[in-house]
Amino acid sequence: MRVALLGFGSVGQGVARMLGEKDLPLTLTAVADSKGGVINPGGIPIPELFSRKTKTGSCGDPGVSAMDIVESDAYDALVEVTPTNIATGEPALTHLRTALGLGRHVVTSNKGPIALAHRELMDLAAAHGVALRYEATVCGAIPILHTLEHGLLGNEVRALVGVMNGTCNYILTRMEDEGLTYDQALGEAQEMGYAEKDPTYDVKGLDTALKLVILANTVWGTEAGLADVQVTGIDLITPEAIRLAMDEDVAIRLIGEAVPSKGLLRVSPRILPRSHPLLVEGTLNAVTVVTDMAGELTFIGKGAGSVETASAVLGDLLYIRERYAGRP
Amino acid sequence: MRVALLGFGSVGQGVARMLGEKDLPLTLTAVADSKGGVINPGGIPIPELFSRKTKTGSCGDPGVSAMDIVESDAYDALVEVTPTNIATGEPALTHLRTALGLGRHVVTSNKGPIALAHRELMDLAAAHGVALRYEATVCGAIPILHTLEHGLLGNEVRALVGVMNGTCNYILTRMEDEGLTYDQALGEAQEMGYAEKDPTYDVKGLDTALKLVILANTVWGTEAGLADVQVTGIDLITPEAIRLAMDEDVAIRLIGEAVPSKGLLRVSPRILPRSHPLLVEGTLNAVTVVTDMAGELTFIGKGAGSVETASAVLGDLLYIRERYAGRP
Repeated sequence: MRVALLGFGSVGQGVARMLGEKDLPLTLTAVADSKGGVINPGGIPIPELFSRKTKTGSCGDPGVSAMDIVESDAYDALVEVTPTNIATGEPALTHLRTALGLGRHVVTSNKGPIALAHRELMDLAAAHGVALRYEATVCGAIPILHTLEHGLLGNEVRALVGVMNGTCNYILTRMEDEGLTYDQALGEAQEMGYAEKDPTYDVKGLDTALKLVILANTVWGTEAGLADVQVTGIDLITPEAIRLAMDEDVAIRLIGEAVPSKGLLRVSPRILPRSHPLLVEGTLNAVTVVTDMAGELTFIGKGAGSVETASAVLGDLLYIRERYAGRP
Repeated sequence: MRVALLGFGSVGQGVARMLGEKDLPLTLTAVADSKGGVINPGGIPIPELFSRKTKTGSCGDPGVSAMDIVESDAYDALVEVTPTNIATGEPALTHLRTALGLGRHVVTSNKGPIALAHRELMDLAAAHGVALRYEATVCGAIPILHTLEHGLLGNEVRALVGVMNGTCNYILTRMEDEGLTYDQALGEAQEMGYAEKDPTYDVKGLDTALKLVILANTVWGTEAGLADVQVTGIDLITPEAIRLAMDEDVAIRLIGEAVPSKGLLRVSPRILPRSHPLLVEGTLNAVTVVTDMAGELTFIGKGAGSVETASAVLGDLLYIRERYAGRP
């Protein structure tokens, strides 16, 4: 299967590196970042991408744009891993619409278009007989969407509850373990590369809210948006609150919850007992799925990271290849 | 899809009850327990099975045997949930061979045939273009096989480590929480219905070893058997050992480990730090999958139970129906 890759940041580089290192039935035929692109129907030599990026700041030539690639015949599946824009979803939304409209499969880690236009994009994919998959948009390396789609067939999913943002979880864990203030823990997270320079998107709970919207719309077929989620972040949590929780043998975590029977979509700091399966440390993510037959199932894994997110992208690509080639 | 059910104990009754309660695209056309069977191509009224079982001790008529059903034309998929025989796999092994040989799909919770003859049975299924699925053989409601098969495509699985027996985990948790001796905790587990009258199979680690063999052969294509597993049970663990562990802020759990690079298949009591994701309480199961790209992923859920195991069986049936009907 011929793969075009849009975005050559952390996730895109992880995908390219794994395609180079692993012997997978996938050929990278086009790549673009925001400054340029390259198309090579015979397969792109992957080390060249990295050396060009180092030398010129772009993996490609300024004369080839992302849209040139999307509109080309050079690929069967588009991998869209450009940065998330939560207001408009662009330019990813246009990339996705165009590729699906041309009858190409799409795999993305970009939360913007999936949170904003899930129904429209899924309908477009179905109308063209292709797949749109987005495992990498929620909880990094945890294959939660695959599990909900295949592993729990026949179950009614009654609730989804989870620690879905590694940055917040790292900050709270450090406040707990070392008695740091929020600002100290945030500074440390920024030094470690776990938090952005402008941490708003993570610490105010928006990233968790987007993931919750994507999960809820996928599982229940709803058309919820960010505005439907009650969101409280972690930026007002004090060392005193953390200490009080520790004295009571509980801990504070930023939890996303979706409970359709209550019409509830909420992101807020919550108290968890010490033995609770969702009480994970550091940058880990954890999601509990509450079902009618299988009971409560909890999935724990790395919520971010270049190779970890690439794992979700490659898993989707290989699943599409297997499924659409009809291999049982 | 027409379903034949062999076995009407805890799992079989769970499957029948869920087929009766839920609106699934599956029709129960034949059922047998060890004393009799019933075939009804138009669909069996499920409440009648339970009332006949209560009145006569069997869900069917003595004139209809399990093998009559296996050899009949009354079904598309066989659900084999008779008790596990770890020495011969019978009678389930013959049921599976016959059904697959007739070109019927098979779903089973029976560890015997899968641990003893995985390769032979998978080859037989492939030769007849049908599916053999056995999610319910390992870790109850946790869809670990689906996850390994679909959610982690492209990953190299380097190790599988887990708490795979709820009975042992319940006993160890009670020794920890209440300071009980092994015999006291076992007695309590028997009263609660979590342990058999003869608990050997669970407490000596054999059940965990069988699950490890099934997981390893599935993931790595090996042909390991029970004899390849180093097995130590939990029956010699003293309250002193438990107390010592608690003093050190660690806990003892029965852990199954498969690490192909070391040729290791081992079941033994191990020490886990308090914050370890595998440190689950009571009858829960937990499995960690160590991969090259996705890192370590841990899955926690109910390891046993009538409806929980039925969830795994029904998930497999619906997956087969979807996959073999070619729906993308």
